[in-house]
Amino acid sequence: MENGVTVWFTGLPCCGKTTVADKVADILKNEGHRVERLDGDIVRQGLTRDLGFSKEDRNKNIERVTFVTKLLSRNGVIVLCTFVSPYIARRDQTREEVSEDSSFVEVFTKCSVEECARRDVKGMYAKAFAGEIKDFTGVDDPYEEPPSPELVIDTEAETVEESTQKVLDYLKGAGFV
Amino acid sequence: MENGVTVWFTGLPCCGKTTVADKVADILKNEGHRVERLDGDIVRQGLTRDLGFSKEDRNKNIERVTFVTKLLSRNGVIVLCTFVSPYIARRDQTREEVSEDSSFVEVFTKCSVEECARRDVKGMYAKAFAGEIKDFTGVDDPYEEPPSPELVIDTEAETVEESTQKVLDYLKGAGFV
Repeated sequence: MENGVTVWFTGLPCCGKTTVADKVADILKNEGHRVERLDGDIVRQGLTRDLGFSKEDRNKNIERVTFVTKLLSRNGVIVLCTFVSPYIARRDQTREEVSEDSSFVEVFTKCSVEECARRDVKGMYAKAFAGEIKDFTGVDDPYEEPPSPELVIDTEAETVEESTQKVLDYLKGAGFV
Repeated sequence: MENGVTVWFTGLPCCGKTTVADKVADILKNEGHRVERLDGDIVRQGLTRDLGFSKEDRNKNIERVTFVTKLLSRNGVIVLCTFVSPYIARRDQTREEVSEDSSFVEVFTKCSVEECARRDVKGMYAKAFAGEIKDFTGVDDPYEEPPSPELVIDTEAETVEESTQKVLDYLKGAGFV
């Protein structure tokens, strides 16, 4: 059986987590690995439909995702998770739980608020700056940067292909693929 | 990769679902298969802590479990799920969702209310009969028997070993192990 791993992309909304993780997933699937993607849109269908964006609800969201990714990665699946997951304490708890029986790799997806807002096709940042949306990470809700992630990808300085390659190189170097 | 499967044990509280599923799990693990167990006690730790026992909450509980078991079984895991899951419509929805990319086996765990109540070490049935607990399946909340389950185990007529063997024989005969 392959060594499963949870690859946890964290970063501001619109920082590029999903774009990079989707590319990594496609490449690894084509290579024959067992891969799952977990992100907000996916889990809200069957797992966290009842939750909003308060700190409590964000943490519950991550708690449920942690339950799922722990089970998948301990069964040899490469799970690519993309969640803003703004709080260090909650991410560290996820790391601890997953690490009990498989591995956890934190990928800090770095991008300035200004650039994230520029990329935001849904106009969420604009609404948050205007006060029309509350609790928006990076605007009126904090994002706590990881002090020691396994990997940093800088989507402002790197192309999508470069960031994707960095993740693949890391996973290969660490023996996960 | 092995063919994953969700083995769904349904039946009244204290009918023997957990006892049989635990034995099946132990045997399959010893044979080297990848096996997970999902039951109320397990999922309430990280997945469904917020839910009670109203019809709505029971269905939400099963909805979240379905999300998890679908992902596990499509990645080749044998998932043994033990939930009262009293409603046919919700069980059928789970069957449909899981069957999209792996397999679903429904095991009706048959036992009379009287015998379940006799086995109930926590005294839940007694409290339900006395009206101290509401919405208790088999007492003041309905249990809808599966009209066409893949397998019926009768824990009143069979020993635990016999029921366990029936499940193992079914899974072997159907090519899942």
